[in-house]
Amino acid sequence: MTERADIRVLAFDIFGTVVDWHGSIVREVHALYPQVDADAFALAWRAGYQPAMQRVRSGQQGWTRIDELHRQILDDILPRFGLGHLDDEARRHLNRVWHRLDAWPDSVAGLHRLKSRFVITSLSNGNIGLLTNMAKRAGLPWDCVLSAEVFRAYKPDPRTYLGVAETFDLAPSQVMLVAAHQDDLAAARACGLATAYIERPLEFGAAHVKDVSPDPANTLHARDLLELADRLGC
Amino acid sequence: MTERADIRVLAFDIFGTVVDWHGSIVREVHALYPQVDADAFALAWRAGYQPAMQRVRSGQQGWTRIDELHRQILDDILPRFGLGHLDDEARRHLNRVWHRLDAWPDSVAGLHRLKSRFVITSLSNGNIGLLTNMAKRAGLPWDCVLSAEVFRAYKPDPRTYLGVAETFDLAPSQVMLVAAHQDDLAAARACGLATAYIERPLEFGAAHVKDVSPDPANTLHARDLLELADRLGC
Repeated sequence: MTERADIRVLAFDIFGTVVDWHGSIVREVHALYPQVDADAFALAWRAGYQPAMQRVRSGQQGWTRIDELHRQILDDILPRFGLGHLDDEARRHLNRVWHRLDAWPDSVAGLHRLKSRFVITSLSNGNIGLLTNMAKRAGLPWDCVLSAEVFRAYKPDPRTYLGVAETFDLAPSQVMLVAAHQDDLAAARACGLATAYIERPLEFGAAHVKDVSPDPANTLHARDLLELADRLGC
Repeated sequence: MTERADIRVLAFDIFGTVVDWHGSIVREVHALYPQVDADAFALAWRAGYQPAMQRVRSGQQGWTRIDELHRQILDDILPRFGLGHLDDEARRHLNRVWHRLDAWPDSVAGLHRLKSRFVITSLSNGNIGLLTNMAKRAGLPWDCVLSAEVFRAYKPDPRTYLGVAETFDLAPSQVMLVAAHQDDLAAARACGLATAYIERPLEFGAAHVKDVSPDPANTLHARDLLELADRLGC
Protein backbone atom coordinates (compact mmCIF):
# COMPACT_ATOMS: atom_id res chain seq x y z
CA MET A 1 0.00 0.00 0.00
CA THR A 2 2.99 2.34 0.31
CA GLU A 3 2.82 3.48 -3.27
CA ARG A 4 -0.91 4.14 -2.98
CA ALA A 5 -0.89 5.88 0.36
CA ASP A 6 -0.15 9.26 -1.14
CA ILE A 7 -2.61 9.26 -4.05
CA ARG A 8 -4.75 12.39 -3.91
CA VAL A 9 -6.47 12.65 -7.28
CA LEU A 10 -8.27 10.02 -9.36
CA ALA A 11 -8.54 11.02 -13.02
CA PHE A 12 -11.09 9.05 -15.04
CA ASP A 13 -11.23 8.17 -18.67
CA ILE A 14 -14.89 8.56 -19.62
CA PHE A 15 -15.99 6.88 -22.88
CA GLY A 16 -16.20 3.17 -22.09
CA THR A 17 -14.81 3.51 -18.57
CA VAL A 18 -17.53 5.54 -16.82
CA VAL A 19 -20.24 5.61 -19.49
CA ASP A 20 -21.52 3.00 -21.93
CA TRP A 21 -21.15 4.72 -25.31
CA HIS A 22 -22.01 1.61 -27.35
CA GLY A 23 -25.20 0.72 -25.51
CA SER A 24 -26.36 4.34 -25.34
CA ILE A 25 -25.88 4.95 -29.06
CA VAL A 26 -27.50 1.63 -29.95
CA ARG A 27 -30.57 2.49 -27.86
CA GLU A 28 -30.93 5.99 -29.31
CA VAL A 29 -30.28 5.03 -32.93
CA HIS A 30 -32.64 2.08 -32.65
CA ALA A 31 -35.40 4.33 -31.27
CA LEU A 32 -34.90 7.04 -33.93
CA TYR A 33 -34.07 4.91 -36.98
CA PRO A 34 -35.26 1.32 -36.39
CA GLN A 35 -34.26 0.28 -39.92
CA VAL A 36 -30.56 0.90 -39.18
CA ASP A 37 -28.11 -1.72 -37.84
CA ALA A 38 -27.50 0.23 -34.63
CA ASP A 39 -24.65 -1.99 -33.45
CA ALA A 40 -22.72 -1.47 -36.68
CA PHE A 41 -23.59 2.23 -36.64
CA ALA A 42 -22.20 2.74 -33.11
CA LEU A 43 -19.02 0.84 -33.99
CA ALA A 44 -18.51 2.79 -37.22
CA TRP A 45 -18.93 6.12 -35.46
CA ARG A 46 -16.47 5.17 -32.75
CA ALA A 47 -14.04 3.71 -35.30
CA GLY A 48 -13.63 7.18 -36.80
CA TYR A 49 -12.58 8.61 -33.44
CA GLN A 50 -8.87 7.75 -33.28
CA PRO A 51 -8.19 8.69 -36.94
CA ALA A 52 -10.00 12.01 -36.42
CA MET A 53 -7.90 12.81 -33.34
CA GLN A 54 -4.81 11.73 -35.23
CA ARG A 55 -5.50 14.42 -37.83
CA VAL A 56 -5.37 16.96 -34.99
CA ARG A 57 -2.34 15.38 -33.29
CA SER A 58 -0.40 15.36 -36.54
CA GLY A 59 -1.21 19.00 -37.25
CA GLN A 60 -3.15 18.13 -40.41
CA GLN A 61 -6.17 19.76 -38.71
CA GLY A 62 -5.96 22.59 -36.12
CA TRP A 63 -7.24 22.20 -32.57
CA THR A 64 -10.78 20.83 -32.87
CA ARG A 65 -13.22 19.79 -30.18
CA ILE A 66 -14.58 16.27 -30.07
CA ASP A 67 -18.09 17.61 -30.75
CA GLU A 68 -16.87 18.74 -34.16
CA LEU A 69 -14.86 15.59 -34.81
CA HIS A 70 -17.92 13.49 -33.94
CA ARG A 71 -19.94 15.53 -36.42
CA GLN A 72 -17.35 15.10 -39.20
CA ILE A 73 -17.37 11.33 -38.65
CA LEU A 74 -21.17 11.29 -38.51
CA ASP A 75 -21.47 13.16 -41.81
CA ASP A 76 -19.07 10.64 -43.27
CA ILE A 77 -20.90 7.49 -42.16
CA LEU A 78 -24.57 8.53 -42.54
CA PRO A 79 -24.84 7.68 -46.28
CA ARG A 80 -23.42 4.22 -45.57
CA PHE A 81 -26.40 3.55 -43.29
CA GLY A 82 -29.04 4.99 -45.60
CA LEU A 83 -29.29 8.22 -43.60
CA GLY A 84 -27.62 10.60 -46.03
CA HIS A 85 -30.90 12.54 -46.28
CA LEU A 86 -30.84 13.76 -42.64
CA ASP A 87 -30.96 17.56 -42.38
CA ASP A 88 -28.69 19.70 -40.23
CA GLU A 89 -31.04 19.77 -37.26
CA ALA A 90 -31.39 15.98 -37.18
CA ARG A 91 -27.61 15.63 -37.46
CA ARG A 92 -27.03 18.13 -34.65
CA HIS A 93 -29.47 16.27 -32.43
CA LEU A 94 -27.94 12.89 -33.19
CA ASN A 95 -24.42 14.22 -32.67
CA ARG A 96 -25.37 15.34 -29.17
CA VAL A 97 -26.04 11.72 -28.21
CA TRP A 98 -22.45 11.83 -26.92
CA HIS A 99 -23.68 14.33 -24.30
CA ARG A 100 -26.46 11.89 -23.34
CA LEU A 101 -24.50 8.70 -22.73
CA ASP A 102 -25.70 6.54 -19.86
CA ALA A 103 -23.36 5.63 -17.00
CA TRP A 104 -22.49 2.00 -16.34
CA PRO A 105 -24.71 0.76 -13.48
CA ASP A 106 -21.89 0.95 -10.89
CA SER A 107 -20.46 4.34 -11.90
CA VAL A 108 -22.52 6.83 -9.88
CA ALA A 109 -22.39 4.85 -6.63
CA GLY A 110 -18.69 4.07 -7.13
CA LEU A 111 -17.79 7.69 -7.82
CA HIS A 112 -19.65 8.89 -4.72
CA ARG A 113 -17.64 6.48 -2.58
CA LEU A 114 -14.33 7.41 -4.24
CA LYS A 115 -15.14 11.12 -3.89
CA SER A 116 -15.29 10.74 -0.12
CA ARG A 117 -11.54 10.16 -0.04
CA PHE A 118 -10.07 11.53 -3.27
CA VAL A 119 -10.46 14.44 -5.62
CA ILE A 120 -12.24 12.89 -8.60
CA THR A 121 -11.93 14.45 -12.03
CA SER A 122 -12.60 13.48 -15.60
CA LEU A 123 -9.62 13.25 -17.94
CA SER A 124 -11.22 12.69 -21.29
CA ASN A 125 -10.66 13.65 -24.89
CA GLY A 126 -14.29 14.80 -24.81
CA ASN A 127 -14.75 18.57 -24.60
CA ILE A 128 -15.70 20.38 -21.38
CA GLY A 129 -19.25 21.18 -22.48
CA LEU A 130 -19.90 17.58 -23.48
CA LEU A 131 -18.50 16.24 -20.21
CA THR A 132 -20.48 18.76 -18.14
CA ASN A 133 -23.77 18.04 -19.89
CA MET A 134 -23.15 14.30 -19.59
CA ALA A 135 -22.33 14.54 -15.88
CA LYS A 136 -25.39 16.64 -15.13
CA ARG A 137 -27.72 14.23 -16.91
CA ALA A 138 -26.13 11.02 -15.59
CA GLY A 139 -25.44 12.30 -12.06
CA LEU A 140 -21.64 11.93 -12.19
CA PRO A 141 -20.41 13.86 -9.13
CA TRP A 142 -17.08 15.24 -10.40
CA ASP A 143 -15.06 17.56 -8.23
CA CYS A 144 -13.56 18.96 -11.43
CA VAL A 145 -14.05 18.56 -15.18
CA LEU A 146 -10.68 18.22 -16.89
CA SER A 147 -10.49 17.54 -20.60
CA ALA A 148 -8.06 17.50 -23.49
CA GLU A 149 -9.64 20.89 -24.21
CA VAL A 150 -8.02 22.37 -21.07
CA PHE A 151 -4.56 21.17 -22.14
CA ARG A 152 -5.09 21.66 -25.89
CA ALA A 153 -3.75 18.15 -26.45
CA TYR A 154 -5.38 14.76 -26.86
CA LYS A 155 -4.50 11.70 -24.82
CA PRO A 156 -2.08 9.96 -25.00
CA ASP A 157 -0.11 13.22 -25.19
CA PRO A 158 1.93 13.50 -21.95
CA ARG A 159 0.66 17.06 -21.49
CA THR A 160 -2.73 15.64 -20.52
CA TYR A 161 -1.51 13.27 -17.78
CA LEU A 162 1.14 15.63 -16.46
CA GLY A 163 -1.38 18.45 -16.75
CA VAL A 164 -3.56 16.84 -14.09
CA ALA A 165 -0.64 16.69 -11.66
CA GLU A 166 0.30 20.31 -12.41
CA THR A 167 -3.29 21.48 -12.04
CA PHE A 168 -3.35 20.17 -8.49
CA ASP A 169 0.30 20.99 -7.67
CA LEU A 170 1.08 17.30 -7.12
CA ALA A 171 3.75 14.85 -8.19
CA PRO A 172 2.60 12.55 -11.05
CA SER A 173 2.71 9.59 -8.63
CA GLN A 174 -0.01 11.27 -6.54
CA VAL A 175 -2.44 11.00 -9.46
CA MET A 176 -4.07 7.73 -10.55
CA LEU A 177 -5.55 7.32 -14.01
CA VAL A 178 -8.62 5.07 -14.03
CA ALA A 179 -9.41 3.63 -17.45
CA ALA A 180 -10.74 0.61 -19.32
CA HIS A 181 -8.03 0.89 -21.98
CA GLN A 182 -4.52 -0.46 -21.53
CA ASP A 183 -2.95 1.95 -24.05
CA ASP A 184 -4.26 4.97 -22.13
CA LEU A 185 -2.95 3.50 -18.87
CA ALA A 186 0.45 2.67 -20.38
CA ALA A 187 0.87 6.27 -21.55
CA ALA A 188 -0.07 7.57 -18.10
CA ARG A 189 2.36 5.15 -16.45
CA ALA A 190 5.16 6.40 -18.69
CA CYS A 191 4.49 9.84 -17.19
CA GLY A 192 4.78 8.48 -13.65
CA LEU A 193 1.08 8.23 -12.78
CA ALA A 194 -0.44 5.34 -10.84
CA THR A 195 -2.96 3.36 -12.92
CA ALA A 196 -6.14 1.37 -12.35
CA TYR A 197 -7.64 -0.83 -15.05
CA ILE A 198 -11.41 -1.26 -15.04
CA GLU A 199 -12.91 -4.27 -16.80
CA ARG A 200 -15.61 -3.28 -19.24
CA PRO A 201 -16.04 -6.48 -21.25
CA LEU A 202 -19.19 -5.16 -22.94
CA GLU A 203 -17.73 -1.82 -24.03
CA PHE A 204 -18.26 -2.76 -27.70
CA GLY A 205 -21.53 -4.58 -27.08
CA ALA A 206 -22.46 -8.15 -26.22
CA ALA A 207 -21.62 -9.30 -29.76
CA HIS A 208 -18.01 -8.15 -29.40
CA VAL A 209 -16.80 -9.08 -25.92
CA LYS A 210 -13.53 -7.37 -25.08
CA ASP A 211 -10.41 -9.01 -23.62
CA VAL A 212 -10.08 -7.74 -20.06
CA SER A 213 -6.95 -9.61 -19.02
CA PRO A 214 -4.97 -7.96 -16.24
CA ASP A 215 -1.69 -6.22 -17.01
CA PRO A 216 0.54 -6.55 -13.95
CA ALA A 217 2.10 -3.19 -14.78
CA ASN A 218 -1.04 -1.46 -13.49
CA THR A 219 -1.22 -0.43 -9.86
CA LEU A 220 -4.73 -1.88 -9.56
CA HIS A 221 -7.15 -4.03 -11.55
CA ALA A 222 -10.86 -3.91 -10.70
CA ARG A 223 -14.07 -5.27 -12.16
CA ASP A 224 -15.87 -1.94 -11.79
CA LEU A 225 -15.83 1.30 -9.81
CA LEU A 226 -17.38 -0.32 -6.73
CA GLU A 227 -14.54 -2.81 -6.58
CA LEU A 228 -12.09 0.04 -7.12
CA ALA A 229 -13.63 1.80 -4.09
CA ASP A 230 -13.20 -1.41 -2.10
CA ARG A 231 -9.57 -1.71 -3.15
CA LEU A 232 -8.86 1.92 -2.26
CA GLY A 233 -10.53 1.61 1.14
CA CYS A 234 -13.45 3.97 0.40
CA MET B 1 -38.74 37.50 -18.52
CA THR B 2 -38.18 37.13 -22.28
CA GLU B 3 -34.48 37.93 -22.06
CA ARG B 4 -34.03 35.48 -19.20
CA ALA B 5 -36.07 32.62 -20.59
CA ASP B 6 -33.18 31.30 -22.61
CA ILE B 7 -30.40 31.46 -20.02
CA ARG B 8 -28.75 28.07 -19.70
CA VAL B 9 -25.53 28.65 -17.79
CA LEU B 10 -24.84 30.66 -14.64
CA ALA B 11 -21.15 31.56 -14.29
CA PHE B 12 -20.11 32.69 -10.81
CA ASP B 13 -17.40 35.00 -9.67
CA ILE B 14 -15.98 33.37 -6.53
CA PHE B 15 -13.87 35.59 -4.25
CA GLY B 16 -16.36 37.81 -2.43
CA THR B 17 -19.38 36.57 -4.37
CA VAL B 18 -19.59 32.91 -3.28
CA VAL B 19 -16.96 32.79 -0.53
CA ASP B 20 -16.00 35.24 2.22
CA TRP B 21 -12.27 35.78 1.64
CA HIS B 22 -11.96 38.58 4.18
CA GLY B 23 -13.63 36.78 7.08
CA SER B 24 -11.88 33.49 6.31
CA ILE B 25 -8.42 35.07 6.22
CA VAL B 26 -9.11 37.10 9.35
CA ARG B 27 -10.15 33.96 11.23
CA GLU B 28 -7.14 31.93 10.11
CA VAL B 29 -4.54 34.68 10.60
CA HIS B 30 -6.00 35.52 14.01
CA ALA B 31 -5.77 31.87 15.08
CA LEU B 32 -2.20 31.42 13.79
CA TYR B 33 -0.70 34.82 14.59
CA PRO B 34 -2.85 36.57 17.23
CA GLN B 35 -0.44 39.50 17.47
CA VAL B 36 -1.17 40.52 13.85
CA ASP B 37 -3.89 43.00 12.77
CA ALA B 38 -5.77 40.34 10.78
CA ASP B 39 -8.19 42.81 9.18
CA ALA B 40 -5.34 44.94 7.82
CA PHE B 41 -3.46 41.80 6.78
CA ALA B 42 -6.41 40.43 4.76
CA LEU B 43 -6.94 43.80 3.06
CA ALA B 44 -3.23 44.18 2.24
CA TRP B 45 -3.08 40.71 0.71
CA ARG B 46 -6.16 41.32 -1.41
CA ALA B 47 -4.94 44.81 -2.38
CA GLY B 48 -1.98 43.21 -4.15
CA TYR B 49 -4.28 41.08 -6.29
CA GLN B 50 -5.25 43.45 -9.11
CA PRO B 51 -1.69 44.86 -9.53
CA ALA B 52 -0.32 41.31 -9.67
CA MET B 53 -2.81 40.28 -12.36
CA GLN B 54 -2.05 43.51 -14.19
CA ARG B 55 1.60 42.46 -14.46
CA VAL B 56 0.38 39.31 -16.25
CA ARG B 57 -2.21 41.12 -18.38
CA SER B 58 0.41 43.66 -19.54
CA GLY B 59 2.89 40.94 -20.45
CA GLN B 60 5.39 42.14 -17.85
CA GLN B 61 5.07 38.65 -16.29
CA GLY B 62 4.21 35.47 -18.26
CA TRP B 63 1.09 33.41 -17.54
CA THR B 64 1.06 32.82 -13.78
CA ARG B 65 -1.50 31.07 -11.61
CA ILE B 66 -3.20 32.91 -8.78
CA ASP B 67 -1.56 30.53 -6.29
CA GLU B 68 1.81 31.94 -7.31
CA LEU B 69 0.59 35.53 -7.44
CA HIS B 70 -0.86 35.13 -3.94
CA ARG B 71 2.51 33.84 -2.77
CA GLN B 72 4.40 36.74 -4.33
CA ILE B 73 2.08 39.21 -2.60
CA LEU B 74 2.34 37.30 0.67
CA ASP B 75 6.15 37.36 0.58
CA ASP B 76 5.91 41.08 -0.04
CA ILE B 77 3.60 41.93 2.87
CA LEU B 78 4.84 39.55 5.58
CA PRO B 79 7.67 41.82 6.85
CA ARG B 80 5.21 44.70 7.17
CA PHE B 81 3.23 42.61 9.68
CA GLY B 82 6.24 41.37 11.65
CA LEU B 83 6.12 37.94 10.00
CA GLY B 84 9.20 38.20 7.80
CA HIS B 85 10.73 35.28 9.72
CA LEU B 86 8.18 32.69 8.51
CA ASP B 87 9.86 29.76 6.75
CA ASP B 88 8.81 28.30 3.41
CA GLU B 89 6.54 25.66 4.92
CA ALA B 90 4.65 28.20 7.02
CA ARG B 91 4.30 30.47 3.98
CA ARG B 92 3.04 27.59 1.82
CA HIS B 93 0.48 26.69 4.45
CA LEU B 94 -0.70 30.25 4.88
CA ASN B 95 -0.89 30.78 1.12
CA ARG B 96 -3.24 27.81 0.82
CA VAL B 97 -5.79 29.65 2.97
CA TRP B 98 -7.24 30.74 -0.39
CA HIS B 99 -8.12 27.06 -0.95
CA ARG B 100 -9.87 27.00 2.45
CA LEU B 101 -12.18 30.00 2.19
CA ASP B 102 -15.60 29.61 3.78
CA ALA B 103 -18.76 30.06 1.73
CA TRP B 104 -21.22 32.81 2.60
CA PRO B 105 -24.05 31.24 4.64
CA ASP B 106 -26.51 31.25 1.70
CA SER B 107 -24.11 29.98 -0.99
CA VAL B 108 -24.41 26.20 -0.74
CA ALA B 109 -28.20 26.14 -0.44
CA GLY B 110 -28.56 28.77 -3.16
CA LEU B 111 -26.27 26.92 -5.58
CA HIS B 112 -28.15 23.65 -5.04
CA ARG B 113 -31.40 25.37 -5.98
CA LEU B 114 -29.88 27.12 -9.00
CA LYS B 115 -28.26 23.86 -10.14
CA SER B 116 -31.68 22.25 -10.45
CA ARG B 117 -32.45 24.50 -13.42
CA PHE B 118 -29.15 25.76 -14.82
CA VAL B 119 -25.63 24.57 -15.47
CA ILE B 120 -23.64 26.26 -12.71
CA THR B 121 -19.93 26.91 -13.17
CA SER B 122 -17.27 29.00 -11.54
CA LEU B 123 -15.68 31.75 -13.62
CA SER B 124 -12.89 32.98 -11.40
CA ASN B 125 -9.38 34.27 -11.77
CA GLY B 126 -8.49 31.60 -9.20
CA ASN B 127 -6.75 28.55 -10.64
CA ILE B 128 -8.52 25.22 -11.22
CA GLY B 129 -6.80 23.41 -8.35
CA LEU B 130 -7.64 26.19 -5.90
CA LEU B 131 -11.28 26.28 -7.02
CA THR B 132 -11.61 22.49 -6.84
CA ASN B 133 -10.08 22.22 -3.37
CA MET B 134 -12.26 25.09 -2.17
CA ALA B 135 -15.43 23.55 -3.60
CA LYS B 136 -14.72 20.16 -2.09
CA ARG B 137 -14.11 21.61 1.37
CA ALA B 138 -17.00 24.10 1.32
CA GLY B 139 -19.49 21.83 -0.48
CA LEU B 140 -19.98 24.03 -3.56
CA PRO B 141 -21.81 21.77 -6.04
CA TRP B 142 -20.39 23.02 -9.36
CA ASP B 143 -21.34 21.29 -12.58
CA CYS B 144 -18.05 22.54 -14.01
CA VAL B 145 -14.96 24.39 -12.78
CA LEU B 146 -14.02 27.12 -15.24
CA SER B 147 -11.18 29.47 -14.48
CA ALA B 148 -8.98 32.09 -16.07
CA GLU B 149 -6.51 29.20 -16.22
CA VAL B 150 -8.65 27.43 -18.84
CA PHE B 151 -8.71 30.50 -21.07
CA ARG B 152 -5.18 31.67 -20.22
CA ALA B 153 -6.57 35.15 -19.62
CA TYR B 154 -7.71 37.01 -16.53
CA LYS B 155 -11.07 38.69 -16.17
CA PRO B 156 -12.05 41.25 -17.39
CA ASP B 157 -10.49 39.93 -20.62
CA PRO B 158 -13.37 39.19 -23.04
CA ARG B 159 -11.86 35.75 -23.72
CA THR B 160 -13.04 34.66 -20.28
CA TYR B 161 -16.71 35.68 -20.64
CA LEU B 162 -16.97 34.63 -24.27
CA GLY B 163 -15.05 31.48 -23.40
CA VAL B 164 -17.91 30.30 -21.18
CA ALA B 165 -20.39 30.69 -24.04
CA GLU B 166 -18.06 28.89 -26.46
CA THR B 167 -17.41 26.08 -23.98
CA PHE B 168 -21.12 25.30 -23.90
CA ASP B 169 -21.81 26.12 -27.56
CA LEU B 170 -24.20 28.91 -26.57
CA ALA B 171 -24.79 32.53 -27.52
CA PRO B 172 -23.32 34.99 -24.96
CA SER B 173 -26.87 36.05 -24.03
CA GLN B 174 -27.55 32.49 -22.84
CA VAL B 175 -24.90 32.88 -20.13
CA MET B 176 -25.40 34.96 -16.97
CA LEU B 177 -22.44 36.19 -14.93
CA VAL B 178 -23.22 36.32 -11.21
CA ALA B 179 -20.88 38.61 -9.26
CA ALA B 180 -20.60 41.04 -6.37
CA HIS B 181 -18.46 43.44 -8.41
CA GLN B 182 -19.92 45.95 -10.87
CA ASP B 183 -16.72 46.17 -12.97
CA ASP B 184 -16.75 42.41 -13.59
CA LEU B 185 -20.44 42.57 -14.56
CA ALA B 186 -19.91 45.57 -16.84
CA ALA B 187 -17.18 43.73 -18.74
CA ALA B 188 -19.41 40.67 -19.11
CA ARG B 189 -22.29 42.83 -20.32
CA ALA B 190 -20.04 44.38 -22.97
CA CYS B 191 -19.57 40.83 -24.28
CA GLY B 192 -23.33 40.26 -24.45
CA LEU B 193 -23.79 38.21 -21.28
CA ALA B 194 -26.72 38.64 -18.91
CA THR B 195 -25.63 39.82 -15.45
CA ALA B 196 -26.76 39.43 -11.84
CA TYR B 197 -25.35 41.58 -9.06
CA ILE B 198 -25.16 40.02 -5.60
CA GLU B 199 -24.96 42.32 -2.58
CA ARG B 200 -22.06 41.43 -0.32
CA PRO B 201 -21.87 44.49 1.91
CA LEU B 202 -19.41 42.80 4.27
CA GLU B 203 -16.99 41.61 1.60
CA PHE B 204 -14.24 43.78 3.11
CA GLY B 205 -15.30 43.20 6.71
CA ALA B 206 -17.70 44.91 9.06
CA ALA B 207 -15.31 47.86 9.48
CA HIS B 208 -15.44 48.63 5.76
CA VAL B 209 -19.04 48.26 4.59
CA LYS B 210 -19.28 48.23 0.80
CA ASP B 211 -21.70 50.26 -1.33
CA VAL B 212 -24.16 47.78 -2.82
CA SER B 213 -26.34 50.19 -4.80
CA PRO B 214 -28.13 48.64 -7.76
CA ASP B 215 -26.97 49.37 -11.29
CA PRO B 216 -30.03 49.25 -13.56
CA ALA B 217 -27.81 47.98 -16.38
CA ASN B 218 -27.71 44.55 -14.72
CA THR B 219 -30.33 41.97 -15.64
CA LEU B 220 -30.94 41.15 -11.97
CA HIS B 221 -29.99 42.47 -8.53
CA ALA B 222 -30.26 40.15 -5.52
CA ARG B 223 -29.32 40.25 -1.86
CA ASP B 224 -27.80 36.77 -1.96
CA LEU B 225 -27.92 33.47 -3.88
CA LEU B 226 -31.20 32.42 -2.27
CA GLU B 227 -32.90 35.57 -3.54
CA LEU B 228 -31.27 34.96 -6.93
CA ALA B 229 -32.84 31.48 -6.95
CA ASP B 230 -36.21 33.05 -6.11
CA ARG B 231 -35.84 35.56 -8.93
CA LEU B 232 -34.90 32.86 -11.42
CA GLY B 233 -37.79 30.62 -10.39
CA CYS B 234 -35.68 27.84 -8.88
